[in-house]
Amino acid sequence: MSKSTNVNPDLQREREKCSFNITELTNLLDGGPQMTEERRRREATVLNEGIHIEEVPSEYLSHKEKYELAVKKACLLFKLIRRLQEEENTGMESFRAVLGGTLGAAILQDGSPLTLHYVMFIPTIMGQATVEQQAYWIGRAFNLDIVGTYAQTELGHGTFIRGLETTATYDPKTKEFVLHSPTLTAYKWWPGGLAHTANYCIVMAQLYTNGQCHGIHPFIVQLRDEETHMPLPGIKVGEIGAKLGMNGTNNGFLGFEHVRIPREHMLMKNSQVLEDGTYVKSPSSKLTYGTMMFVRVVIVKDMCNYIAKAVTIATRYSAVRRQSQPKPDEPEPQIIDYLTQQHKLMVGIATAHAFQLSAEWIWNMYNNVTAELDAGDMERLPELHALSCCLKAVTTADAAECVERCRLACGGHGYMLASNLPITYGHVTAACTYEGENTVLLLQTARYLVKAWQQSSGGNELPPTVAYLSRVGAGRRSPPWDNTIEGIIRGFEVVAAGKIGLCVMNIERRQKSGLSYEDAWNMTSVQLTQASEAHCRVFILTSYFEETERLVKNASPELREVLLQLVDLYVVYWALQRVGDLLRFTSISERDIEKLQHWYEDLLTKLRPNAVGLVDAFDLRDEILHSALGAYDGRVYERLMEEALKSPLNAEPVNQSFHKYLKPFMQGKL
Amino acid sequence: MSKSTNVNPDLQREREKCSFNITELTNLLDGGPQMTEERRRREATVLNEGIHIEEVPSEYLSHKEKYELAVKKACLLFKLIRRLQEEENTGMESFRAVLGGTLGAAILQDGSPLTLHYVMFIPTIMGQATVEQQAYWIGRAFNLDIVGTYAQTELGHGTFIRGLETTATYDPKTKEFVLHSPTLTAYKWWPGGLAHTANYCIVMAQLYTNGQCHGIHPFIVQLRDEETHMPLPGIKVGEIGAKLGMNGTNNGFLGFEHVRIPREHMLMKNSQVLEDGTYVKSPSSKLTYGTMMFVRVVIVKDMCNYIAKAVTIATRYSAVRRQSQPKPDEPEPQIIDYLTQQHKLMVGIATAHAFQLSAEWIWNMYNNVTAELDAGDMERLPELHALSCCLKAVTTADAAECVERCRLACGGHGYMLASNLPITYGHVTAACTYEGENTVLLLQTARYLVKAWQQSSGGNELPPTVAYLSRVGAGRRSPPWDNTIEGIIRGFEVVAAGKIGLCVMNIERRQKSGLSYEDAWNMTSVQLTQASEAHCRVFILTSYFEETERLVKNASPELREVLLQLVDLYVVYWALQRVGDLLRFTSISERDIEKLQHWYEDLLTKLRPNAVGLVDAFDLRDEILHSALGAYDGRVYERLMEEALKSPLNAEPVNQSFHKYLKPFMQGKL
Repeated sequence: MSKSTNVNPDLQREREKCSFNITELTNLLDGGPQMTEERRRREATVLNEGIHIEEVPSEYLSHKEKYELAVKKACLLFKLIRRLQEEENTGMESFRAVLGGTLGAAILQDGSPLTLHYVMFIPTIMGQATVEQQAYWIGRAFNLDIVGTYAQTELGHGTFIRGLETTATYDPKTKEFVLHSPTLTAYKWWPGGLAHTANYCIVMAQLYTNGQCHGIHPFIVQLRDEETHMPLPGIKVGEIGAKLGMNGTNNGFLGFEHVRIPREHMLMKNSQVLEDGTYVKSPSSKLTYGTMMFVRVVIVKDMCNYIAKAVTIATRYSAVRRQSQPKPDEPEPQIIDYLTQQHKLMVGIATAHAFQLSAEWIWNMYNNVTAELDAGDMERLPELHALSCCLKAVTTADAAECVERCRLACGGHGYMLASNLPITYGHVTAACTYEGENTVLLLQTARYLVKAWQQSSGGNELPPTVAYLSRVGAGRRSPPWDNTIEGIIRGFEVVAAGKIGLCVMNIERRQKSGLSYEDAWNMTSVQLTQASEAHCRVFILTSYFEETERLVKNASPELREVLLQLVDLYVVYWALQRVGDLLRFTSISERDIEKLQHWYEDLLTKLRPNAVGLVDAFDLRDEILHSALGAYDGRVYERLMEEALKSPLNAEPVNQSFHKYLKPFMQGKL
Repeated sequence: MSKSTNVNPDLQREREKCSFNITELTNLLDGGPQMTEERRRREATVLNEGIHIEEVPSEYLSHKEKYELAVKKACLLFKLIRRLQEEENTGMESFRAVLGGTLGAAILQDGSPLTLHYVMFIPTIMGQATVEQQAYWIGRAFNLDIVGTYAQTELGHGTFIRGLETTATYDPKTKEFVLHSPTLTAYKWWPGGLAHTANYCIVMAQLYTNGQCHGIHPFIVQLRDEETHMPLPGIKVGEIGAKLGMNGTNNGFLGFEHVRIPREHMLMKNSQVLEDGTYVKSPSSKLTYGTMMFVRVVIVKDMCNYIAKAVTIATRYSAVRRQSQPKPDEPEPQIIDYLTQQHKLMVGIATAHAFQLSAEWIWNMYNNVTAELDAGDMERLPELHALSCCLKAVTTADAAECVERCRLACGGHGYMLASNLPITYGHVTAACTYEGENTVLLLQTARYLVKAWQQSSGGNELPPTVAYLSRVGAGRRSPPWDNTIEGIIRGFEVVAAGKIGLCVMNIERRQKSGLSYEDAWNMTSVQLTQASEAHCRVFILTSYFEETERLVKNASPELREVLLQLVDLYVVYWALQRVGDLLRFTSISERDIEKLQHWYEDLLTKLRPNAVGLVDAFDLRDEILHSALGAYDGRVYERLMEEALKSPLNAEPVNQSFHKYLKPFMQGKL
């Protein structure tokens, strides 16, 4: 925490009236005091290096300069990580500690062209190369003799992996694979670091051998000369152009003109091509699910961080900003005193908690399932997959909404890049698309839910996260409405079950009317995405509620009270957001709804005095927030002016365009 | 329409199966064939100048270069407008024709530093200066002897105008006003063109004379030397820094250190300060409402344009993009064949129509009310004000959602700036904040609605746009549900009335429990914003439905059918979005809801074959769409690659950062 001596008095007053111990909450969110200690020490070590300090803020640079700055920062940061690895002898752990969470992102604001080397290139070799291949490649990759990336998506093909067009055809005469891009749409498109940074790449391509296609397999391909960095013959590589955000990631395109690589460059831990071209199939095709699910769990954790950041910025700003005069003769109130503003902020704070606890829950499940997998038990894999799909979709969509709501809650100043809210949104909204587009993911979960529903109707027992389907089952409106938190969560179970049931009915009805299953599915797919979302709400509400109940057992009474208020707020908020669903599928009454509304307004008022304390507890250093509106000291206006003065346009009183265009124009001489 | 010979065959097929005449719809949207003709001629004239063509796309430039490009473009565009004015002898009409709508925005992608000169500086002089002042200033401004802007908002003060801090103190000894910024928060902040472009400015400041404050008044202040463009003594001027979007607008800050201006520089059409310092009050304070409302109506029209643009891009892309393989042995379908995709696109098309017709309706009302005002009749002013507030809030929020939904519907490619969707979002979301922050505006409408409700309860007759409050009044659930378009719209009236009634009840209840009216209002304000939005929905649904019914009377049967389908889609979509409200306040049943859902799905299927025809009818030239994904010819992938190759990073095979950072880093020598 960066404490300034000169704190805005309104913000100071907020901190004084906080009812709980802020450090206690920080420790709880970190997972214990020693974890807080460790995180803070790590942050101090890394930030003391000053890699994050920009001479000219990167938003004023050209696209090309942004890339060059990103390379510089990434090299310095990874150099630091290597040093830490040696000093602390921690191996990959140092990467996770520095790059995971908010710290790495604070330094690599615009993304980094080296991230995929560590996050995809090395792990893919570790996961899919044979022992001999690993011996050859891993050391070179770790030592950075080579810099790699991972190329799967193509210009014309994203989500549907089977549709990829790049081919790798085995030539038994030379014992080589020939990589080729048969069309423009076959060009690889998007991989980070691919454009001008990486000299090697893992390429996913359709494997052809002995005239037969065996589907998508991974190959290591050299792209650039190791000395000169010039693209090798037959390699068409470049960058894909400017994006909404993350312009430091150096996303690239890659096309092949009959490029030959040795047979040994196919990663053969699973499937193999023998010297004579014989294809030996992988024993299981589900083994690659693991990384995908791991990445999705990481995304959920990222979403907590982004929300925490945005809501810290907006809440502190709302305590400093004053506006209007509802009562004559009284000063302009802090805008956080407006209920509409509390409505925009408080649910953000609760969402950060809810997602963190949901992420921990699914993280544990992931570890259990992985352990079971290693023991050959794949039973819970589909359940985990279904859960990770909808959770990724719902948390990224909610996070985008939260961050954007926070930005808009800061009025015009939220539109300034100096607020750091637009850039945060750029990162969050990207997550709605990458690693599985959200609508596609919701439909994957829906497929599992429909199956579970049918199994349940068939009298089969269901896995834990869908067990409620059997419990609340077919009977609509059956249980009397219970206007408590537990009652609302049970209500959401009834809603989810009701929606899934309705989807199944609609699909069957459409099949009976003559449609194929696929067409009936498609016609019902809008409803299916909604059913899938409803299922995910059940999971988030349940895990947030249950995990908080568990956590607060050891908390002080003051903290317990506020954490439970936040859970209440979150659950009641969602009940009001989904009141139509509750009215359709449960026996909630108009009187219950009006009570919920008052409960909600009452909770906002109760949480209001603790708002700043709650965001302080996220313990995000000023360097991590990187926001003129959100700094710990609340010197909002001073910082906005300081940031403005950094604009290169302000370095000269008169810009050259005056002489070049404006004056001639005014004089009619242009 | 820019027709290429080489159209993507999928897109070609879409056009062939369109059931209606596209030109007929274009004419109808334009207001007649001669209007289409005129617009096209205007577009051709302006675009032939080539001002919009960028050597290097502006997204690759530095912040400073972006400004310089914006000045150049703005000067060239306004020079062209001057030429057209002379050639066609049209006066201000040429400005509106070129700058209004989509044409000006297509050239000034990033906003323009000269816009406020025309949109605020000149109109304010025209509206608030005396005849003598106009004689002096208007000519100079029109001739561009001076370039001006308009400064109201301050660093610490936005919506609440009475809170502005800048002072203008009259000194009768010298017959001057002294302009001063007493604090940092008093600095003017945001005005477009203020930073480095304008040399004059209208400044809104607290007028002090004879020791008394008389509130906010307008003053003309010279900022820069007319020859050298250097800031004058006591003037602190500069730019506020980079923003989410519109980085060509040159938004500036402005502080005064006891800057003296002649008495004649106060705009005195309304209030005056006499030589001896005597203050003479304006006869009416409502006269300035006009411009504010005018601007809001213009915003609604802008929102149509942005939505039309985004939905054209996303729909054409969805016809070209193919993905997945739901049925084995069949090719990957066009993604527009997925119901979930239709769900994202079709409501956007309908929204553009709905907003256009709502904008026309309120435009007519605005003109009537202005005419009444001129005749001294102010009766409908509050009603118009209330309607313009909520309509600005709801249409900007809906437009932001529509545009973002379109962007996400294009997957990863929507994240590319080459799609033009991120930049479009940047413009639209800005409108949620400027010219009245949306939550504040909704609460202004709510204040009117509460008053109307109380008048109605008192038996008074209500103005037309709120007359439904008396009609559906207090009785809840009274009329039997009618599952038709008219029935749904009546249902929305019941909802809005129910919500307003509930708000009034809650405010009164809270007052009875001891709260002041202001606190009771604040505690109910979340509900009040929702009531206000519900009222706005009634207006939009009604005007869209009624105006379409009127319009299609003269349309061909084919066009009539599809336009009515779109109205149905829009109304049913909103019924399903607001099903909770309908269940709470009307007698709609679960069976009705399921019917609505099927009706909706059925409408999507019916509209599907006409999707491309419908967006073609918006008749947005490729130069206006400015999108690799949305061009008329559908050469999506070719254009994406062409755009990528324009990146300056792709001009060199090896970027200097390799030698400077990456290679030393890899060799452990960094």
